This record gives sequence, C-alpha cells and structure tokens, in this order.
Amino acid sequence: MKDLPLSKVYQLLEPGPVVMLTTARKGRANVMAMSWHMMVEFEPPLVACVVGSAYSFEMLRATKECVIAIPARKLASKVVEVGNSSGRDIDKFESFGLTPLPAKNVGAPLIKECFANLECRVSDTREVNRYSMFILEVVKAWIDPDQKRPKTIHHHGYGNFVVDGEAIRLKSGMR
Amino acid sequence: MKDLPLSKVYQLLEPGPVVMLTTARKGRANVMAMSWHMMVEFEPPLVACVVGSAYSFEMLRATKECVIAIPARKLASKVVEVGNSSGRDIDKFESFGLTPLPAKNVGAPLIKECFANLECRVSDTREVNRYSMFILEVVKAWIDPDQKRPKTIHHHGYGNFVVDGEAIRLKSGMR
Repeated sequence: MKDLPLSKVYQLLEPGPVVMLTTARKGRANVMAMSWHMMVEFEPPLVACVVGSAYSFEMLRATKECVIAIPARKLASKVVEVGNSSGRDIDKFESFGLTPLPAKNVGAPLIKECFANLECRVSDTREVNRYSMFILEVVKAWIDPDQKRPKTIHHHGYGNFVVDGEAIRLKSGMR
Repeated sequence: MKDLPLSKVYQLLEPGPVVMLTTARKGRANVMAMSWHMMVEFEPPLVACVVGSAYSFEMLRATKECVIAIPARKLASKVVEVGNSSGRDIDKFESFGLTPLPAKNVGAPLIKECFANLECRVSDTREVNRYSMFILEVVKAWIDPDQKRPKTIHHHGYGNFVVDGEAIRLKSGMR
C-alpha cells in the first residue's frame, strides 16, 4: 500500500463506488458494504455516510473510527456476501477471505484486497440519531500501486451492479 | 416522461451518477452539475446533497424546491458546460440546448433531455450553514421510456469521467 495525498481522496469517492466500511472494538473487527456516502469537503476530506448496518453502527458510534475500503470488480461477489451477513454471527474477514491489515492512525483494519483504503475518524455526530448519518474525516489514505486502473462497481439495488466502463476526458475547469 | 414509483428512486441515485440540479425563482431558471449527493432514506426518498454553486445555492435556499435531472452519456459535454458556467451570467438552458419542462409539484423545471427527473422539496436545512448540505425529499419521479438502458457518467475530477460499463447481477438479499 502506498500513500495517497488527501487532496485526491474525493476522486475516489465522488463517482459513487460501492465501498466496504471496517470497524474494530475489543479485539473484534467487522466489515459492511455501503453505497450511501458522499463527499462533503475536499480538504481535509470530509465524507458523509449513512450506516444502515446495526452492528457496524454500534461499533462506529462507540469507537469513532473506521476505514473505508474500495473494492474493484473482482471483489464484487465478496462485497455481496459481506452485505448479506452480520458480523454478530460470523467473522466476515475469515469467512469471505478478506485480509485485515493494521491501519496507521485508527483501530479499524485496512482490507488488503481493496485497491484503496481510507482511514477515517468521526468528526460530527449531529445527524446520527436522525439519519444514521456520520460525518467522517479522512486522516490517511492508501492506494495499492499493483492494481492498475481498477474498475469499481456501482449498486443499483438487489444485487444489480454496473461496472466502470469507458473513460472519457472533457475540458473542465471544475475540480 | 412516465411516472416512476418513489420506491425505485434510490436505484437511480445510489450508483453515484453525475446529476444536474435545476432551480427557478422570479421567472428565471438555472441548472448546475452535481456529484456530491447520496441517498439517506428509501421511502419517502430522502437525498442529501452539497450544493457548491453559489447561484443555485441561493435559489434553493430561497425557494426550497429543485429538480434532480439525471443525464446519460450523450449529454456529458453539456453537463461539463453547465458545470463550467454560472447562471448569473447566462441562461444555461438556452446556451447549452437544454429544454426546460414544467414540473408537476415544484417550480423548478424538468430537463427534457435527461432520462430521469426527480422533483424535490427541501425537507431539512440544519446542515446548510455548516456544510452547504440540503436534505431533499423526492416528491415525484419521472422516467423517459424512450431512453433504454441509459448509461450514466461518474466524475473523477477535472473533467475525467467513467461511463457505465458491464452490468452484473449477483444474488443479494440487500435492497
């Protein structure tokens, strides 16, 4: 895993990939699948997300730390298995062959198989009770240089996904 | 344009497409490009979005109504033009050949060329001052039945986009 400047984090999350969110507490790590996230600020990168999974929600609220791990196409079936199960019942890392790696600044693990990992701290909990929405600050970002041009996946509901296709470049002054 | 059940709105926005947001006030309509949005609730569909464009921000805050219009691949260059200009200076609909259509429940216009249009009312402004974040309720959704399997576009920053590619279906209990 290689450092990614924090100023580039939005380029990973803005296009709306399915991500995985890891948490850890009292020696137990967990992981959920998540599509309800958006950028809120470029730098420091702030990310809003709605955490609908009860077990991860509890761990995130208690520890205020997590990792957003971004999977490419080849992990799609594992992402679905992660989304279809609860960390209360099983160790999802072990069950689905995902490898936890220690993060630098947070207690939650990185996922080795993901092409990007974002270490996050909860920076604002004001909308947690109303919408299960956390505002996260990305404090450290990692990218796997061995995964060239990873194709991310986008969820359309009920296990229907669209994979990244053609890349196009248009002249834009917009960041 | 054909009715779309509100329960299916999330399937359009969850995958993270670039959208356009229209507003209207005192006989003037405007449109901006937007990628910072996410679903917050399935039904009624609630959508959080960060409105970074000053002119649209003012209009949305004043009128509390907007339309989220979702463009397919063929509109990509127009979306960039919309994002690169300000409605203070020009009529973007006229300048870029976008056709405003009257909405049913809000004052902001639909965009005829987009394959989906979501009429929205602002339902929560508590995070507007801090993050420019509005919570919108989708009150009416339209789909263009003539645009079959539209491919959406996803922004990676600075005019770099990825177009929807391969569709895959995996067995999932997740909505």
